[in-house]
Amino acid sequence: MTRSPPPSFLAVLGGERRDPPPVWLMRQAGRYLPEYRALRARAPSFIDFCLNPEMAAEVTLQPIRRFGFDAAIIFADILLIPLALGRRVDFVAGEGPQLDPLTMDEVAALDLSQVERILAPVGESLRLTRAGLPDTTALIGFAGSPWTVATYMIEGGGSKDRWNARRLAWAEPERFDALMDILATATARYLVMQAQAGAQALKLFDSWAEGLPEPLFERVIIRPTRAIIDAVRAAGVNAPIIGFPRGAGLMYPRYARETGVDAIALDHSIDPAWADAALPPGLPVQGLLDPAVLRAGGAMMDAEIDRIIKGLQGRPHVFNLGHGINPDVPVAHVERMLARIRGGA
Amino acid sequence: MTRSPPPSFLAVLGGERRDPPPVWLMRQAGRYLPEYRALRARAPSFIDFCLNPEMAAEVTLQPIRRFGFDAAIIFADILLIPLALGRRVDFVAGEGPQLDPLTMDEVAALDLSQVERILAPVGESLRLTRAGLPDTTALIGFAGSPWTVATYMIEGGGSKDRWNARRLAWAEPERFDALMDILATATARYLVMQAQAGAQALKLFDSWAEGLPEPLFERVIIRPTRAIIDAVRAAGVNAPIIGFPRGAGLMYPRYARETGVDAIALDHSIDPAWADAALPPGLPVQGLLDPAVLRAGGAMMDAEIDRIIKGLQGRPHVFNLGHGINPDVPVAHVERMLARIRGGA
Repeated sequence: MTRSPPPSFLAVLGGERRDPPPVWLMRQAGRYLPEYRALRARAPSFIDFCLNPEMAAEVTLQPIRRFGFDAAIIFADILLIPLALGRRVDFVAGEGPQLDPLTMDEVAALDLSQVERILAPVGESLRLTRAGLPDTTALIGFAGSPWTVATYMIEGGGSKDRWNARRLAWAEPERFDALMDILATATARYLVMQAQAGAQALKLFDSWAEGLPEPLFERVIIRPTRAIIDAVRAAGVNAPIIGFPRGAGLMYPRYARETGVDAIALDHSIDPAWADAALPPGLPVQGLLDPAVLRAGGAMMDAEIDRIIKGLQGRPHVFNLGHGINPDVPVAHVERMLARIRGGA
Repeated sequence: MTRSPPPSFLAVLGGERRDPPPVWLMRQAGRYLPEYRALRARAPSFIDFCLNPEMAAEVTLQPIRRFGFDAAIIFADILLIPLALGRRVDFVAGEGPQLDPLTMDEVAALDLSQVERILAPVGESLRLTRAGLPDTTALIGFAGSPWTVATYMIEGGGSKDRWNARRLAWAEPERFDALMDILATATARYLVMQAQAGAQALKLFDSWAEGLPEPLFERVIIRPTRAIIDAVRAAGVNAPIIGFPRGAGLMYPRYARETGVDAIALDHSIDPAWADAALPPGLPVQGLLDPAVLRAGGAMMDAEIDRIIKGLQGRPHVFNLGHGINPDVPVAHVERMLARIRGGA
């Protein structure tokens, strides 16, 4: 028997450059795929869907079978952490997630004791997925970062400007920072469990890192991320960790230098040439393609793909979107994107 | 008779430094003021309120009487431009603006012929306001920028991620750029009219400049802004123009260099020391305080005020927020903010 080469995705996260770059898409297991929609229709709720290992593994594998992406990311949701801390989380069709808004008085009562038990099905999803993946395809585990998860917990769902979370971060720094600590602890335990269940890389989604003054960015983004990574490493987990502080703008370089991440994901507002100049030398970079240009397709998309690959040709690069793929993106555009990226091989 | 000194706000926009800096707040005529809410209750609709010169002038003057801000900004709305182009615009209480979503097929039929007539009441508001203002208080006119206004026109209101506007900007560049041209023409005429009616400075709000890849930022933000400023100057208007591409992040310096703005407003994600280093020397800067820290008040707010003033002490600086003031900000916090800024005089 010959041994398969290690996944090119992991080689790039380890600091190698590959031409063409490995590629996967945020939210690649999702509603733009008919086979996803068919399976989703069979689960009674979105939470049930996430916590059903057979279903979660199947939708994780669907885009790998269809497109041969270089990495699979386990199907789950960043709001499983509040659920595991004993909070109510419901996904209402067409309206998004709904939670009971968390008050600062409730922070101290958040219960860390059930995190591993409640999230154990995600570990099972990872084991089933790994068994179904080609050896050359990497498996990614993930979690939401404390600030982003806290915004949903405090606002009771999505919100236009995270106003209540922002004002409480300023107005009640001690209790707010205690919330960050609790979320960092829960998140680290969750990531360790995922690595032990077969995740070969881990990604932290800080989807609402935008619009924060520097002192707040330091307190609610950099410090909790550093705490998570320290705790994961202290538990003996060596899987590379990708940080994605979406919308961080000028703060991406500080995040890259100060949190301990092994790679950084960038949103589509970032110019690849700027990123290459501003980020620590050799740090692997992922992301950048605007999902809206993937929706548009055609020559504009080709030009954007070329611009990103060219801008990052001097460092390890994993091709990806700057945000999750939208449900209305045609499958044919994903196929064209892959041909454009891989055609240059 | 002695002649009053010119408004310190205009001196700073002209390149002088002042200690303490002049100060005003975005959305200072707004719902956080009881006297605003009382007058608003008497108008049948928000559009009627904006286009009633007596009412608009009165709410413009209210925060000047209460706080003695260094500048008044005329009470109006960025969606008066679609209204002046013949589109339906309704403000639904608790839900925000509602428009008939614009299709690319309708772009060529947008009617520029009625812009000055429909927006004439804003000119009258400016004349009434100027007559009621102290000589040392500057009067600012404003408009939304083409990209931001287009997002509302295309989405039919506010939206989480301006998805349709973004995909059309990529997918239909010719018709989309034609829309930018029409909006730039309408906006330039509106600003010229405002200057002729007494506006001593003009501000362009590009509230949704965030999250755009560089090629799109250049096409939908920089190029239309440059076109507006060229047209305003060609009409003989010399009032300084402040640009506010909110969320532009890394792109603020290019915007400052390439659009022709006389001053730049920055959102609260920007570090003042970075701005001072990255922006053209001597360019006046405005903005930066997080409205959420104004809501929080106290020592955190004082520290943020001090950080911003210190970071910008080397260049002309107008103190302001990084986004509009929220309705739940206590008036006492605005008073404390002013004491902190002016106490250093």
